[in-house]
Amino acid sequence: MRYEEYTIEGRNAVMEAFRSGRPIDRLFVLDGCQDGPVKTIIREAKKGDIPVQFVKKERLDQISGTGKHQGVIAYAAAYEYAEVEDILKAAGEKHEPPFLILLDGIEDPHNLGAIIRTANLAGAHGVIIPKRRAAGLTAVVAKTSAGALNYTPVARVTNLTAAMEELKQKGIWFVCAAMDGELMYRQNLTGPIGLVIGNEGEGVSRLVREHCDFAASIPMRGNIDSLNASVAAGVLAYEIVRQRLGAGR
Amino acid sequence: MRYEEYTIEGRNAVMEAFRSGRPIDRLFVLDGCQDGPVKTIIREAKKGDIPVQFVKKERLDQISGTGKHQGVIAYAAAYEYAEVEDILKAAGEKHEPPFLILLDGIEDPHNLGAIIRTANLAGAHGVIIPKRRAAGLTAVVAKTSAGALNYTPVARVTNLTAAMEELKQKGIWFVCAAMDGELMYRQNLTGPIGLVIGNEGEGVSRLVREHCDFAASIPMRGNIDSLNASVAAGVLAYEIVRQRLGAGR
Repeated sequence: MRYEEYTIEGRNAVMEAFRSGRPIDRLFVLDGCQDGPVKTIIREAKKGDIPVQFVKKERLDQISGTGKHQGVIAYAAAYEYAEVEDILKAAGEKHEPPFLILLDGIEDPHNLGAIIRTANLAGAHGVIIPKRRAAGLTAVVAKTSAGALNYTPVARVTNLTAAMEELKQKGIWFVCAAMDGELMYRQNLTGPIGLVIGNEGEGVSRLVREHCDFAASIPMRGNIDSLNASVAAGVLAYEIVRQRLGAGR
Repeated sequence: MRYEEYTIEGRNAVMEAFRSGRPIDRLFVLDGCQDGPVKTIIREAKKGDIPVQFVKKERLDQISGTGKHQGVIAYAAAYEYAEVEDILKAAGEKHEPPFLILLDGIEDPHNLGAIIRTANLAGAHGVIIPKRRAAGLTAVVAKTSAGALNYTPVARVTNLTAAMEELKQKGIWFVCAAMDGELMYRQNLTGPIGLVIGNEGEGVSRLVREHCDFAASIPMRGNIDSLNASVAAGVLAYEIVRQRLGAGR
């Protein structure tokens, strides 16, 4: 996948992006490149907690849109990230119990976009994603969200479990999607809630799961293992909608 | 998108594929190509109700994996299609009321794959797709279905509404996804049912909708228009599951 549109290439351009405070999702650096300017760029990236990836020249050339990367390429976020506080504020303004969707390492930008779209329509107040090992708000995500990114805030946190613990202090309960959880219909999902969806391949990580208050499962009547991550997020989010509406009783 | 793996190129290879009865999703022919062998190939395609698309040389070259297409390229289905009868038989063997998912023109192979995956896990007995203006069972679909294609039969019909009328004779009711339909929780979806999901951009076509017995809507609490097609299919399919389980009452 290419993000040409939001690729920042070359040493000056990348440093300028850092200085302007523009959100950067990821920095690619030529493996073995150790001169002064590159060291400065890496230091800036670490200060901003931006994941740095050292790659071979062929890979950099492939990512590059201009061919003039000088050993550094940054992926800029296509959209601005919100703060977790903004999400809670949105819930407060609507006088609704907070409804958040947390993504524990969704990697496919199409899934991320589809989940933001679902969050918007299910009435979730925002989405929280981790900085590392996860898709950021790229142009593909913006497109797949079908406009939802203009309305539904997405916050990015360094540490998902730390963010969960802070939110717990504010009365929010966390439920994660897990195949061995209690059937979702049997759980009370009507209060202030954070729905945690795991990575496409591995599901919710052990550590994140330990920080959840309960685990909910979708009934599985077939032969294969699991639903697509954005479909699972949709089914669980709409079980929360159903319970909040008091429907289907 | 490329389907190299299932691309059949050149006049002899394409004729051989027709002769062997291998399911072909689509035939590309060089625009203006009118010689005898090509006419024979087009006639065979029409006999088999295979969509024929006339394209410029640049497009053919782009699709081609070998560069030796001789003016004709066929996309072969990666998987075998089932018959509608097979789907009903599967329901009968399980002693369950039939639960079918009909796709009125899903074009994105990722959506088709995700829906087949959902169909499997929601316990639907099969999926019905139209021959024209819709994604077929390509390698991308097989991959996105995460193995579900090995278990859940997919039938392909020339005329979706004709298939629906035949199925109605066998006692199946049809519900389509429509934003202006009755809220899904208020409908009885427990009997023999065909769930109809529309095209990504345009939803269910007017004609197909006229052949449905009722229209169901998913509650929409956000700012944008619609869910991703595979998420909408998941939410509606699982409302059918919930009602069949008698859960959440």
